[in-house]
Amino acid sequence: MPGNSIGQLFRLTTFGESHGPAIGGVIDGCPAGLKLDYAFIQSELDRRKPGQSKITTQRKESDAFEILSGVKDFITLGSPIAFNIRNQDYKPSDYDEMANAYRPSHADYTYDAKYGVRDHSGGGRSSARATAAAVFAGALAKLLLKDLQFNAYVSQVADVFIGKDYSQLNLKNTENNMVRCPDDSTAAKMIEVIEKARKDGDTVGGVVSCVIQNVPVGLGEPLFDKLQASLAQAMLSINAAHGFEYGSGFAGTKLRGSQHNDVFEKTGNKITTKTNNSGGIQGGISNGMDIYFNVAFKPVSTIMQTQSTVDSSGNATEIKGKGRHDPCVLPRAVPIVEAMAALVLADHYLRNKTARI
Amino acid sequence: MPGNSIGQLFRLTTFGESHGPAIGGVIDGCPAGLKLDYAFIQSELDRRKPGQSKITTQRKESDAFEILSGVKDFITLGSPIAFNIRNQDYKPSDYDEMANAYRPSHADYTYDAKYGVRDHSGGGRSSARATAAAVFAGALAKLLLKDLQFNAYVSQVADVFIGKDYSQLNLKNTENNMVRCPDDSTAAKMIEVIEKARKDGDTVGGVVSCVIQNVPVGLGEPLFDKLQASLAQAMLSINAAHGFEYGSGFAGTKLRGSQHNDVFEKTGNKITTKTNNSGGIQGGISNGMDIYFNVAFKPVSTIMQTQSTVDSSGNATEIKGKGRHDPCVLPRAVPIVEAMAALVLADHYLRNKTARI
Amino acid sequence: MPGNSIGQLFRLTTFGESHGPAIGGVIDGCPAGLKLDYAFIQSELDRRKPGQSKITTQRKESDAFEILSGVKDFITLGSPIAFNIRNQDYKPSDYDEMANAYRPSHADYTYDAKYGVRDHSGGGRSSARATAAAVFAGALAKLLLKDLQFNAYVSQVADVFIGKDYSQLNLKNTENNMVRCPDDSTAAKMIEVIEKARKDGDTVGGVVSCVIQNVPVGLGEPLFDKLQASLAQAMLSINAAHGFEYGSGFAGTKLRGSQHNDVFEKTGNKITTKTNNSGGIQGGISNGMDIYFNVAFKPVSTIMQTQSTVDSSGNATEIKGKGRHDPCVLPRAVPIVEAMAALVLADHYLRNKTARI
Amino acid sequence: MPGNSIGQLFRLTTFGESHGPAIGGVIDGCPAGLKLDYAFIQSELDRRKPGQSKITTQRKESDAFEILSGVKDFITLGSPIAFNIRNQDYKPSDYDEMANAYRPSHADYTYDAKYGVRDHSGGGRSSARATAAAVFAGALAKLLLKDLQFNAYVSQVADVFIGKDYSQLNLKNTENNMVRCPDDSTAAKMIEVIEKARKDGDTVGGVVSCVIQNVPVGLGEPLFDKLQASLAQAMLSINAAHGFEYGSGFAGTKLRGSQHNDVFEKTGNKITTKTNNSGGIQGGISNGMDIYFNVAFKPVSTIMQTQSTVDSSGNATEIKGKGRHDPCVLPRAVPIVEAMAALVLADHYLRNKTARI
Repeated sequence: MPGNSIGQLFRLTTFGESHGPAIGGVIDGCPAGLKLDYAFIQSELDRRKPGQSKITTQRKESDAFEILSGVKDFITLGSPIAFNIRNQDYKPSDYDEMANAYRPSHADYTYDAKYGVRDHSGGGRSSARATAAAVFAGALAKLLLKDLQFNAYVSQVADVFIGKDYSQLNLKNTENNMVRCPDDSTAAKMIEVIEKARKDGDTVGGVVSCVIQNVPVGLGEPLFDKLQASLAQAMLSINAAHGFEYGSGFAGTKLRGSQHNDVFEKTGNKITTKTNNSGGIQGGISNGMDIYFNVAFKPVSTIMQTQSTVDSSGNATEIKGKGRHDPCVLPRAVPIVEAMAALVLADHYLRNKTARI
Repeated sequence: MPGNSIGQLFRLTTFGESHGPAIGGVIDGCPAGLKLDYAFIQSELDRRKPGQSKITTQRKESDAFEILSGVKDFITLGSPIAFNIRNQDYKPSDYDEMANAYRPSHADYTYDAKYGVRDHSGGGRSSARATAAAVFAGALAKLLLKDLQFNAYVSQVADVFIGKDYSQLNLKNTENNMVRCPDDSTAAKMIEVIEKARKDGDTVGGVVSCVIQNVPVGLGEPLFDKLQASLAQAMLSINAAHGFEYGSGFAGTKLRGSQHNDVFEKTGNKITTKTNNSGGIQGGISNGMDIYFNVAFKPVSTIMQTQSTVDSSGNATEIKGKGRHDPCVLPRAVPIVEAMAALVLADHYLRNKTARI
Repeated sequence: MPGNSIGQLFRLTTFGESHGPAIGGVIDGCPAGLKLDYAFIQSELDRRKPGQSKITTQRKESDAFEILSGVKDFITLGSPIAFNIRNQDYKPSDYDEMANAYRPSHADYTYDAKYGVRDHSGGGRSSARATAAAVFAGALAKLLLKDLQFNAYVSQVADVFIGKDYSQLNLKNTENNMVRCPDDSTAAKMIEVIEKARKDGDTVGGVVSCVIQNVPVGLGEPLFDKLQASLAQAMLSINAAHGFEYGSGFAGTKLRGSQHNDVFEKTGNKITTKTNNSGGIQGGISNGMDIYFNVAFKPVSTIMQTQSTVDSSGNATEIKGKGRHDPCVLPRAVPIVEAMAALVLADHYLRNKTARI
Repeated sequence: MPGNSIGQLFRLTTFGESHGPAIGGVIDGCPAGLKLDYAFIQSELDRRKPGQSKITTQRKESDAFEILSGVKDFITLGSPIAFNIRNQDYKPSDYDEMANAYRPSHADYTYDAKYGVRDHSGGGRSSARATAAAVFAGALAKLLLKDLQFNAYVSQVADVFIGKDYSQLNLKNTENNMVRCPDDSTAAKMIEVIEKARKDGDTVGGVVSCVIQNVPVGLGEPLFDKLQASLAQAMLSINAAHGFEYGSGFAGTKLRGSQHNDVFEKTGNKITTKTNNSGGIQGGISNGMDIYFNVAFKPVSTIMQTQSTVDSSGNATEIKGKGRHDPCVLPRAVPIVEAMAALVLADHYLRNKTARI
């Protein structure tokens, strides 16, 4: 099966190059009878779109969507939901250089090597622009899972770390600042670091944390489609993502079992755990506690500096920083992480419907 | 699609409960004409099997395999390769307690909640015993990819960290000690830590690192089946895995783009990179450099201590440590990580055959 | 997996309602480097489009396509190829009646029952208009399989039967008449029968035969994806198709094995068979001989007559024939059958690339 | 995806060569909590097994199954259900000839051409013995769909045709005779025809008809996984099947729309149709009426006569009839057709669970 689809029952297939006519996708398997809130969908796209603040790329895209099928009077029909987002603001001339030189740490070389042909303009299919389709579909997934809350936020930029657990934060503050960090003083420091990188023509990486609350018990399909495995795949498919950890993650490897184990207890009618090192997932299946995880993002590869490289014949050459520059993708990665998480949960929500007779 | 299969073209479907008649699997899509080396396959299973050293569980299983189909005169036929590994040494009485009490941080509660029925003995389907099937299939994948080297090793146990990059290690030493750490002095400290945990009836976690060398350029299917996304899914499907990072990983988030970017150069006839923060993957596609990644494992949940918990009605109860006890799964996770990596690479190797006309 | 995709490696996902903004699809898995001939693609769509002759529906659609992705300078990039075909000529008022009454032998009732919501206008998703997307994708499949010939034709309309085997016909004559029957005198009789049905406000069914020539040996994946099984699925997914037979088909059931067996011989360098009752497929795998099969189409359900029926509450009512009327879909089914066949062969062509090491 | 799996949610993967250690399969996706009736499963296997009467092959196989996983105390656990059926009675020496000569109309040549290696003994993977795995899984599907009735029967052998519609037959009589034709006098004629063929060392083909009753409304996934498309694929995957028609089938192509349309009416609380030319499926979705279809089977290729052929080098040679001989597979195809139908319905039954929110 080719690689542009995700999900088994709530299945998104995406398409589109950065500078082609449009990007978009088809969602097949969205149950019939779901009421769509177009304003909400657009607001999700707006959280991801370029040019939204001074610390992101200045490409201007309205990211207005058109739904072509599968919906009537704002109600899903059970048939495939196709959508397009037209590309508007692109300057192919900014990318002429790329036709001949491989940008360091970009996909130019590997696409050429794999496919023997390449749309070099704007990164083509490898551009992060493709994530807009995931955000659109993620918005539908959120509408389907209306009782769940998906809250992602920036917890680290370069070496500025929020230093608090999600339970110590007010996640409603995430959208209050342009870096999408719910802790205002940390946010200020992060913006400073990003501004400095931008002035240097450089970029910085960081970490997006995500919390999913009010998850029903039972989502996840052992063995290979454990809920954390599906989340890991989804997160590592995001451009620039280099790591994923859930629950106690890498830090938890230093604990002993007696410290790490989450003791069961009863809270009201529900079985809960006193601690939640399991991150809401046990044996690959959600246990009803909060799911939380971190995604590591490397610093973006496009820098406004001259770099050595080779051309497609392997000859040494240089590439200059030109075009638009996104000093830090973290703020815009927040809605993408939420969207991918929502796609995974929606799929497992539907898959769980047939677990028992 | 149910969750017990992995891979699109080199596809493994596994089955089996810890204390049922057998575990095993079916490999569909293995190309015809591959010569199987049964001794090698058994040696891979032996690296994973329980009871192999004093620092692992003392369950005794020969893990002898039987191939039922798809092979004639040691040559694959192109038809499905089914295999069984019989379960031998199990003591159901050790697990009676589990029928009534949920073990903390195990899958007992979630399986019950999801399926409404459960094979409590030995953890049933959620037991790490199921990984033997992956090791068998991974051995075939390694035979298919005979030019690639898969080398995993234990790089951290609790707070004992190897402190060296894989390039500074002699990976041939990994099998020299029972903890599978290629650095002897670190290995000794790790064993000490594990022994101490065992005496305390406790467990420790850690990190397995893996390097894949001599990978052809072009493996990986953007968008959602990027090579790192498939690896992440595979690794997070392993029991007790809580994190995955590749290339520069979480640490790389603190670098600037100008530090992180891997500059291209020509080495002989090949295009290579001076550094390898990309971990051998760019744009989701292998670039021919070494692929390397880390997998975090939590401390095993089964401890030889009395813990509070609830029964299936939610009533408070206690569970005592009984039965066999694996103080640290890391040494046995090494062949599992390699096997899952080989399965992913074999699948993408076949998928890449149709990338171009 | 939802039902709007076909193919494993050459994978088409379609979307669109008859009277929605557009129909279209995404082809994922088309190898990179394929040169597209847009005029050919349009000519295939034109063979299917409505209003092309007096014996088909008079709906006017130019069926002009727009390619949104995956192609640059007419060369496929290896990324998903998305395409839209806008809907133009629809008269929703013709269909008001359908909102309240279930048309006999249409999908109105079953869609309502399954989804609880329905786009009644023009048949919504169940309209044969959706086949345009398959024809588009089939054109690409034909370009990929440029050495193969796909020739379908109308061999029966109502009780007018061509009475000859494909080997006795000049298949180049198929496009010479509006009924797409390569035998002129039979074609004249078919047109007469269709004209008569049209005047009566009635419809007629028939059979489309298809021959695929120059097929490489080895296509087909036993067990369940035998080549004939994939063809059968593809053909039975076409609107109004009620039967499929290949090779000797239903008639062959009356032969004895000694009559039916195709004896092998050598022709030049190739192994061939003296007869071809196997229809070019043995054990589910193409043997290099011509593949041929028949597809039965029922008479279209939309008739210009008043019929008894029930409304969505089950109350008796009547439905009058209104709107456009297609007295016989057979002529337009010819390119659809070819397209579906090409999709199946393209998929199996790619799948066969990994049969051997 | 390789070809040895069928079904999306109720998914069977089969394995096994005719003369290998065992055949079997893995069912993944069977809901938890289903009570298995082992005697019923064995009785279904017994209906298919060889040697059951004088008009079938005399190979002796008990076809005893072993369940290896996924079941505890006869209740399904929701985990994969693996099963083996050991091969017992095979005489490899009967097949030595096949190592060098391609049997006419068998899969010998195509397997060799595709895979480059072949298990010639007993037909290897291409043997109809593989259908036993489908019968096992079909028995589970029937248990899951306990309210549905699946009744297949032999309606034609060579030119002996039952001449009656299923509604005119007492389907409970099907098992009363060894040819599995519910009309006794027709059965007698069929047996006579088969006996005659057997004496001549020849074989005869025929038709199996199947009726599925009490089907819920709503099963089937437009567009490409219409219920009839899935049935067609399943039926054409059976060895020797050459055709499929449902509802009015090929005969219905001669009717006019006004004759063919099934008028809706209300029967009790249900919406029904006066006639059932639609064969219980409209728009690809079950409408609650009986589903009925026919499957054409060619005469078996193995005959006890000397035939011309070529060897693997293409040199002319002869092949003699030796070994066991099945003059007519129709009686044993009856349980296979039912099993494949049950697998399709079970899969669509589960898939339909997510059609609506």
